[in-house]
Amino acid sequence: MITKIDHLGIAVKSIDDALPYYEGMLGLKCDGREEIESQQVRTALLAAGDVHLELLEPTSDESPIARFLEQHGPGIHHIAFATDDIHDQLAQAKGHGVRLIHEVPFVGAADKLVAFLHPKSTFGVLTEFCQAKH
Amino acid sequence: MITKIDHLGIAVKSIDDALPYYEGMLGLKCDGREEIESQQVRTALLAAGDVHLELLEPTSDESPIARFLEQHGPGIHHIAFATDDIHDQLAQAKGHGVRLIHEVPFVGAADKLVAFLHPKSTFGVLTEFCQAKH
Repeated sequence: MITKIDHLGIAVKSIDDALPYYEGMLGLKCDGREEIESQQVRTALLAAGDVHLELLEPTSDESPIARFLEQHGPGIHHIAFATDDIHDQLAQAKGHGVRLIHEVPFVGAADKLVAFLHPKSTFGVLTEFCQAKH
Repeated sequence: MITKIDHLGIAVKSIDDALPYYEGMLGLKCDGREEIESQQVRTALLAAGDVHLELLEPTSDESPIARFLEQHGPGIHHIAFATDDIHDQLAQAKGHGVRLIHEVPFVGAADKLVAFLHPKSTFGVLTEFCQAKH
């Protein structure tokens, strides 16, 4: 079951350039930064109520975020829904004919299990399911 | 002060076509539908935790959402932050050199006062402030 929106992924060219806007102007608090080597991104998590904005900066030209920036420029990249059972959620999606980018969840930011649905199946919205590991 | 994310605007060609995905597959509850004549859109609000997804369907070819769909196809359109004082929030944004689309808030969906910041000033993210009317 989907319990809430966990975070919104936002592609930026440079986290350092964007943080003064998010922290200084919007007044959001940075809860942590990390590098996810498998996705070739650096992230910064900003708290807005119980949802995070996840700034995503590419660490190489082959990063999916580098390709997104090339095609679209900076902006909102994906919505991540928190689920209490990511395997069941993916099975349900598949049952509804939704195309999965990842059939098997992997460990993403904040040490959560994550998997993405293809935007062609989700009305143009790149959609992530994520679940805290137990 | 920004208190939370109020909603995410999502541009769709047809709310009726998209609802089975959001309600049936994701299991989100539709909290209401309305038409906002000033923006030439129909909306449907879907609850995900304490944030809403706001599906936006154009009611005319001149609707901002019709232009967005032409340029980008369906997808995430904007982030709306709830604020306890929209006039102060807009003044702060202006003070930080952010370009405002609306200098003066207007009444948007769910009878809230709303105003938008220009994505050129917000790292590519079309950003809305909104405040419940007192």
